[in-house]
Amino acid sequence: MKKIIIYDTTLRDGSQTEGISLSCRDKISIAKKLDYFGIDFIEGGWPYSNPKDKEFFDYFSKKKLKKSRLVPFGSTAHPRNPAGKDKNLLSLLRCNTEYVTIFGKSWNLHVREVLRVEGDDNLKIIHDSIKFLRKRKRKVFYDAEHFFDGFKADTDYALKTLKAARDGGADELVLCDTNGGTLPWEIKEIALRVKDELSLDRFGIHCHNDSGLAVINSIVCVGEGCDHIQGTINGYGERCGNADLVTIMGILQLKMGYKAISPGKMKELMYLSHFVSEVCNVAHRDNYPFVGGSAFAHKGGVHIDAVIKNPLAYEHINPELVGNKRRFVVSELAGKSTLVTKAKELEFNLDKKSSRARKLHKLVQKLEKEGFQFEAAEASFNLLLQKELKKYKKFFDLLGFKVIVEKREDDKLISEATIKLKVHNRMEHTAAEGDGPVNALDNALRKALTKFYPILAEMHLTDFKVRVLNEEGGTAAKVRVLIQSQDAKDNWSTIGVSENIIEASWQALVDSVEYKLFKDSKK
Amino acid sequence: MKKIIIYDTTLRDGSQTEGISLSCRDKISIAKKLDYFGIDFIEGGWPYSNPKDKEFFDYFSKKKLKKSRLVPFGSTAHPRNPAGKDKNLLSLLRCNTEYVTIFGKSWNLHVREVLRVEGDDNLKIIHDSIKFLRKRKRKVFYDAEHFFDGFKADTDYALKTLKAARDGGADELVLCDTNGGTLPWEIKEIALRVKDELSLDRFGIHCHNDSGLAVINSIVCVGEGCDHIQGTINGYGERCGNADLVTIMGILQLKMGYKAISPGKMKELMYLSHFVSEVCNVAHRDNYPFVGGSAFAHKGGVHIDAVIKNPLAYEHINPELVGNKRRFVVSELAGKSTLVTKAKELEFNLDKKSSRARKLHKLVQKLEKEGFQFEAAEASFNLLLQKELKKYKKFFDLLGFKVIVEKREDDKLISEATIKLKVHNRMEHTAAEGDGPVNALDNALRKALTKFYPILAEMHLTDFKVRVLNEEGGTAAKVRVLIQSQDAKDNWSTIGVSENIIEASWQALVDSVEYKLFKDSKK
Repeated sequence: MKKIIIYDTTLRDGSQTEGISLSCRDKISIAKKLDYFGIDFIEGGWPYSNPKDKEFFDYFSKKKLKKSRLVPFGSTAHPRNPAGKDKNLLSLLRCNTEYVTIFGKSWNLHVREVLRVEGDDNLKIIHDSIKFLRKRKRKVFYDAEHFFDGFKADTDYALKTLKAARDGGADELVLCDTNGGTLPWEIKEIALRVKDELSLDRFGIHCHNDSGLAVINSIVCVGEGCDHIQGTINGYGERCGNADLVTIMGILQLKMGYKAISPGKMKELMYLSHFVSEVCNVAHRDNYPFVGGSAFAHKGGVHIDAVIKNPLAYEHINPELVGNKRRFVVSELAGKSTLVTKAKELEFNLDKKSSRARKLHKLVQKLEKEGFQFEAAEASFNLLLQKELKKYKKFFDLLGFKVIVEKREDDKLISEATIKLKVHNRMEHTAAEGDGPVNALDNALRKALTKFYPILAEMHLTDFKVRVLNEEGGTAAKVRVLIQSQDAKDNWSTIGVSENIIEASWQALVDSVEYKLFKDSKK
Repeated sequence: MKKIIIYDTTLRDGSQTEGISLSCRDKISIAKKLDYFGIDFIEGGWPYSNPKDKEFFDYFSKKKLKKSRLVPFGSTAHPRNPAGKDKNLLSLLRCNTEYVTIFGKSWNLHVREVLRVEGDDNLKIIHDSIKFLRKRKRKVFYDAEHFFDGFKADTDYALKTLKAARDGGADELVLCDTNGGTLPWEIKEIALRVKDELSLDRFGIHCHNDSGLAVINSIVCVGEGCDHIQGTINGYGERCGNADLVTIMGILQLKMGYKAISPGKMKELMYLSHFVSEVCNVAHRDNYPFVGGSAFAHKGGVHIDAVIKNPLAYEHINPELVGNKRRFVVSELAGKSTLVTKAKELEFNLDKKSSRARKLHKLVQKLEKEGFQFEAAEASFNLLLQKELKKYKKFFDLLGFKVIVEKREDDKLISEATIKLKVHNRMEHTAAEGDGPVNALDNALRKALTKFYPILAEMHLTDFKVRVLNEEGGTAAKVRVLIQSQDAKDNWSTIGVSENIIEASWQALVDSVEYKLFKDSKK
């Protein structure tokens, strides 16, 4: 199987999506996940233009990735600077990576009106910038920005820019459809002309989705020299986005017989797509090819009937190949073996075929359908199992709580919570204020419980995430709250789901405290 | 300009989308809008399988459309029925339309395993069903279901099914990629083989998006015999959706020189896309090619600078051609020129070098540092500018609100909000319950305001996002709320930031309502 190089720019082009804003920590977690998947190259950012990106590269200069290679991105030198003194190029070197990517201008319109230099000067800038980086032992990917528009406007000049890059020593020439306006047959014709004119044996491609054609434009030359594809997970990116690598990897590997990632990882493609959307805090689209929640969902009797007779009837691939699953819109099928394993951790021998296992399985499916997501909240899952397997020990009884947020005419805002609970038949009724309703409730709960369980003072919350599940529900939408807590030894995560954010937070808060008490009681 | 026939199946295939459920009234309003746009054919539904669809056709038997032709959809006769007694075919006749569409089986797997008849019997069914409809003076579109899969499995048989349809008198043979798994070069090769084998001068195409290729698969044969394209507005449809007619019409007409709709209507393409998403009650995706809210949005200083010099620099078409517009996204990356441009939209001449511009620029930077992200909340930014430029008109005064969430011993949870405000010196004090505190507040605000501003009933929230900014702050962390709202014409987004989620939601809610009132007051 011929390998196609996958070059991910989620952290650079993808982070340009309107509404996506990644912290350095977010970027690190995505990079680690891409590394786990063995994505060949990860474009980490533009260190010169964005100080946040510098922090990211600093992190990975100490903590190396296992499989992927990290690449910083930048432009050719500024027209006024000699390459060796260009801060942008120097910032690339400072990332201490094997590869760097720089982009340059291919389109005479850009050279003239945006860069505002003579055509020959631009050629020299491209050549010298790459040569400088090569001298410093970097391998260089050259992104020929607007290449196809440039080729249409002035073929001769566009070709000259590529020759300058090649002569400068670029390791791969990447043809970019920056405005996303080129049609696939144009892409193919132009790319093959380039290959011919420059006697290339291979080239790369970088496409944008402004005409809804980024996927096809990225694959139309595979098999004819294109062996390097740039894109983003879920097609994130400015305007209409970049080429979606998830779809592209699915097509290359499952339909065209090329290798994009290892087959084992292909089976987790849906997970990758989900993970990235989660970190980007963007809802995962149900209609994503291959990995969407609806991609193998069958509705309507005729289709369901046919698919039961033979899945091929209405499925273009086996959903398991990408970690997705067939759904008959209402009922879902998840594995019971996980439950057995988890029960074992609680020293409970659960028979996979028992009615108890069946009941538990149904309960989990029901909760997941309601929006619980236990893989991100194992402590809550542990407590759930304890309850179902009658191993649960109650640490307190809630009698009630009340949260008040009041905005008065002087514009002052007050959040207050009162809570009434019982521990070993002793009642406690406390009140606390806070920065917002959830914090007030959190404060009141701790105030009430720490009296009885002083060890609670050892733990604290480290992470509080809120996710609206059905965003189209507007302010009545269901909300999922994930809380991460830690003490000196462990960290654990808990979950709550409700239309009421106070209730969802309450569930996660209580689980967090109960799990701490449970795990310490075992010792 | 050669005309390509546009055949819309939003009301049939599109209504199969998970999460979309259209009432008869919804369908009628979409049909009228498609008629206004001069879409050639509107597949209204499957009257036999869906009684709601019968009502729809009854409505239009009295009230004719002006430009479009309505088409009912159905299957070939049931194997046990002679065509003349098949209830499904008879229900098509009862719609009293000039055209009807029926689908039949092309794939031997389906004939054998789903239909469970002999191959020759299926050929006869196809032939007789069409012949019967033709005798009753109907023009017939024949949808060859799973044609490409069928052709790959048994070329000879698949071709025979088409010949049966042609011999029965079908007016157009439509090749369907029902499972959406075929690659564009396969589509082209097979379609041209068909054209050749059957000596066709034209054919139609119907594609699904399971591989993210429905758009290219629909247009790959235009110019080589394909003159009829079936799809849906915004690509709605089961699983990963159907071919998106909005993108297809954009490409055909603006990039390939064909005629899909009148040029005047092309300028309202964005409106069509919005209108349909609104009736389907689905948020309009910002990254839609041509018509998305982000499709011509520029972020980052380099791009903005270049586009100001020449829009071609980063735009594949002039956004006005489809009724969209260029936007300079406000973000920490952007400079003062964006402010000037935005002020101009408010008919305010802001001098880039004035102290006012400097002050404004500093304010935006300060707010963005606090967690505001105006690029995702242009309506809030617009209101902010109005306030700073003294162009702001207050629609109401808040005197105070109070939100109470109470959990009682019976585990019942109650959320109630009270609100006191003044409009034109009239006081309003109302209360409302809700699914959670934000929804209660939302309900109370609308209840209080709709009395004075009945147009608020036209708008609704489509998206509600919560993002914890400094997650490590635990329950006291700062929260950013983004709300998206829409009415029949526009969508707009607003923002609120606070440690208190109620306060953050309140800010976004108020902006959302104020923006609606502001934009309607301009007319």
